[in-house]
Amino acid sequence: MKDVSQFDEGLDKNEANHVPLSPLSFIRRAAAVYSDRTAVISGDTQFTWQQTYARCCQLASVLKSFDIARGDTVAALLPNVPTMYEAHFGVPMVGAVLNAINIRLDPATVAFILDHSRARLLLADPEFADVVEKALGQMEGAPPIIINVPDATQGRQPPISELDYETLLAQQPETPAWALPGDEWDAIALGYTSGTTGNPKGVVTHHRGAYLNAVSNVLSWSLPARVTYLWTLPMFHCNGWCFPWTLAAIGGTSVCLRRVDPSLILQLIRQHRVSHYCGAPIVHAMIADAALAAGETFEHPVAGLIAGAPPPASVFERMEKIGVELTHVYGLTETYGPATVCPKQYDWVDQSLEERVRLNGRQGVTYPLEEDVTVLDPDTMEPVPADGQTMGEIMFRGNIVMKGYLRNPEATEKAFAGGWFHSGDLAVVEPDGYIKIRDRSKDVIISGGENISSLEVEEVVQRHPEVELAAVVAMKDEKWGEVPAAFVQLRSDSALTEEALIAFCRDKISGFKVPKTVIFGTLPTTSTGKIQKFLLRKQLDDGLSA
Amino acid sequence: MKDVSQFDEGLDKNEANHVPLSPLSFIRRAAAVYSDRTAVISGDTQFTWQQTYARCCQLASVLKSFDIARGDTVAALLPNVPTMYEAHFGVPMVGAVLNAINIRLDPATVAFILDHSRARLLLADPEFADVVEKALGQMEGAPPIIINVPDATQGRQPPISELDYETLLAQQPETPAWALPGDEWDAIALGYTSGTTGNPKGVVTHHRGAYLNAVSNVLSWSLPARVTYLWTLPMFHCNGWCFPWTLAAIGGTSVCLRRVDPSLILQLIRQHRVSHYCGAPIVHAMIADAALAAGETFEHPVAGLIAGAPPPASVFERMEKIGVELTHVYGLTETYGPATVCPKQYDWVDQSLEERVRLNGRQGVTYPLEEDVTVLDPDTMEPVPADGQTMGEIMFRGNIVMKGYLRNPEATEKAFAGGWFHSGDLAVVEPDGYIKIRDRSKDVIISGGENISSLEVEEVVQRHPEVELAAVVAMKDEKWGEVPAAFVQLRSDSALTEEALIAFCRDKISGFKVPKTVIFGTLPTTSTGKIQKFLLRKQLDDGLSA
Repeated sequence: MKDVSQFDEGLDKNEANHVPLSPLSFIRRAAAVYSDRTAVISGDTQFTWQQTYARCCQLASVLKSFDIARGDTVAALLPNVPTMYEAHFGVPMVGAVLNAINIRLDPATVAFILDHSRARLLLADPEFADVVEKALGQMEGAPPIIINVPDATQGRQPPISELDYETLLAQQPETPAWALPGDEWDAIALGYTSGTTGNPKGVVTHHRGAYLNAVSNVLSWSLPARVTYLWTLPMFHCNGWCFPWTLAAIGGTSVCLRRVDPSLILQLIRQHRVSHYCGAPIVHAMIADAALAAGETFEHPVAGLIAGAPPPASVFERMEKIGVELTHVYGLTETYGPATVCPKQYDWVDQSLEERVRLNGRQGVTYPLEEDVTVLDPDTMEPVPADGQTMGEIMFRGNIVMKGYLRNPEATEKAFAGGWFHSGDLAVVEPDGYIKIRDRSKDVIISGGENISSLEVEEVVQRHPEVELAAVVAMKDEKWGEVPAAFVQLRSDSALTEEALIAFCRDKISGFKVPKTVIFGTLPTTSTGKIQKFLLRKQLDDGLSA
Repeated sequence: MKDVSQFDEGLDKNEANHVPLSPLSFIRRAAAVYSDRTAVISGDTQFTWQQTYARCCQLASVLKSFDIARGDTVAALLPNVPTMYEAHFGVPMVGAVLNAINIRLDPATVAFILDHSRARLLLADPEFADVVEKALGQMEGAPPIIINVPDATQGRQPPISELDYETLLAQQPETPAWALPGDEWDAIALGYTSGTTGNPKGVVTHHRGAYLNAVSNVLSWSLPARVTYLWTLPMFHCNGWCFPWTLAAIGGTSVCLRRVDPSLILQLIRQHRVSHYCGAPIVHAMIADAALAAGETFEHPVAGLIAGAPPPASVFERMEKIGVELTHVYGLTETYGPATVCPKQYDWVDQSLEERVRLNGRQGVTYPLEEDVTVLDPDTMEPVPADGQTMGEIMFRGNIVMKGYLRNPEATEKAFAGGWFHSGDLAVVEPDGYIKIRDRSKDVIISGGENISSLEVEEVVQRHPEVELAAVVAMKDEKWGEVPAAFVQLRSDSALTEEALIAFCRDKISGFKVPKTVIFGTLPTTSTGKIQKFLLRKQLDDGLSA
């Protein structure tokens, strides 16, 4: 029980000294402070902060006109266009919850999500007319209202609905008619995880966490005010790691990007003096290759956040060559995107490239405003020793952890067992306290009773300078149960052979960890650049391997 | 009433996803992430983050050994020494409230504060033995336990108590034995405002606000990780504007400074490559003068926050000359220090010096994580038009506003009347939305029925290049009721006359605003550099004027 002290008497919360934390406060301030500065650029279109704020307020009024209110779901099937940015503010302005859907999903999954989220309204890009039509046909519940969101950079396209975004917006006054949430614990967004088995789970996040991680991005990346940010990362992925809100907090400019097109990216970086962008290793690799092919290095400082997998040596080296400073972060949809960062210590610059790659390839330490990340034995919930050897599960605790899974109490309870959020990623703690992922629980290869980290093997394979990307999965083996099989995407000018690559690995890791087979080809990745290992496993099961 | 939606069901707070906001989280993370980096420097003494964290934990254990617990007050009468930094963490670690007392106060006021705060323990520097002894003699309640905190930079001094800080610390284990507060609304600090009449009021702040303003400093000043910060600003002043906590959040190094000594400041800036510091205009003026006299400009970027009064033209110009970038902020003890900032717009650099001084001399806009600052007519509570003319009172609302005044419900209620915190400062809103203070309510000069802003007159006087500091107060006048009288501190080499200065002003403002008399001399300032106008008024009342 809490003792009452003199500091508890007559010192209550009131309207003047307590306000719910919400990223909506950021855009109101941005409109006032950075009013005439550019907020959003998309092709030839530019909006100032005042205009973007007005458009968000108009979107809120449009939603109100459709009777969308607190607790309703508004879905978006949009690439990185201005409307997607506006939806991150306009939707929560009426207390509704934004469900940004991955634009690469198949109609059946989109139908499942629209049903499960109980979406009342869908903002959709006409490119996805076919997917939307099929998804609506497969839905069990009431279909959402569809609003057509044309992208001016794509020219005229047949609309997906008679309701047109710009027309609806123009009918509404620009004056703010919204309020902060009554409670900072109110939901702000819903994001479905791309599970490989079973139905996706709906991760519910809240205003407090969105506010705090938006600010946490500023601290972890030392972001100055008014940066120019290129949207290489899809906003439908963990709400763009909270960067729509981060950019409002610091008056940063968003440069929209419909798809990852390396030559367009180079052009936009030059044209708008882009200083920051985020992405999976493959995105950085594509930018580096394009820049090197064009003989280009950036004249102004450019910084990239990298997540999804540690930066391979080849990417790390190439980014240094073209003058991009990489920072490695790690997180999950359940942690609002990044929830750890690998801060560079001063003495790392003196290390060899190989050592720098190793040091920066670690998941690192707690994100600035996350409370705690640790590696626990999931059975005993005891921390593993910081010996770089003992594996445990990465667990998070803090204000940047989801509310839970939507209408899924079993999964929610399991995720929060023991008062920690269970990431499902297996890791060690190195002596300097930095966390290093060894594997996803489900990706561990068990060979002759020994656990092999598929990531450890991948990193060795990726150290070969001719390897572009690599994935290592378990292959069934009569003698050992499982053995590692490597799927390798080579750089275009390479003629590397299986034998040479296996010999290369044999020098660097224990024999039982060396891939027993190497399959060359293009690796299947998700829209966010993650390698789809389940497809590789299927390929092995189907006997399509070498 | 709040509707219940699917997002409210089964998605409650738990240990994994909700943690009280507290700046104590920052030092725990700093100890882990920046462990071997220097946290605190004082003379030849240096502590790493791990050591500083260990010392804070030891301080918490010392306090526990004296039975100090939640809701107890721990007072500190300390200059900017390492212990003062440690007290900002060690005291709240046990749930106690830190009351940092201004070291320039007289024994009667110190006695009043110790009584009113019900201080259980006092950390005191031996320099103030005399004040402490007299204050204890004048107290009505039980005297606090006194702990002697010697400053190694001062050599041996007779101790103020047999209880020695370092000895007590050494008796405690370095292992953390503390917890976050049960509620982020719990009090973290108590600061007494230096009222000119009546007893000082005790401003109570909370963990949530301290956390948010600590981070807000990072955003408003675009502070990168691991800056080196010089403690020109006393930590007893609004808890050093929350910078003890800010520096822990970004792993910044604190360089302690016992007193404002310009040549030592220059030496420390050079020696430790100090990048940031804060202070009142007089502090900046002293640094500029010393640097110019020594023919010194800083080789590395140095940034200064300036508050307490707008930067006079002479200071602004001199800081530009020596290469210090000034940012103007404004706030009160009740708002945890800075709560507005004057962000520089890009086109300001093209303006004349005079115009830049005018633009940067405004109090500006809401601090990044404060919710709102506005100028309201205190009678109607309606916003004044943004015309640069209509005066109203600056009012704040948000999470960076105090809990209230300790055991003073009347003052608390009055301060929060109408759902806004009333600052007592009168201001206008300029057409670009920036706020400009015209005066403290009590400093307005009423001459022939016209209100004269003493600040407006001061700024005109201060535009004269030979004026170092100026203060304008009301002087009784038989005909007009009141007229402006100027107290002026000239630069050392100046021979400016009263007539010349009055003529200088006459060109620039309406006749009735021109000072009727000018008194030359050194101006009395508080330890934080604020001019003590009540002493000037007293001087006039006593007939000591020209």
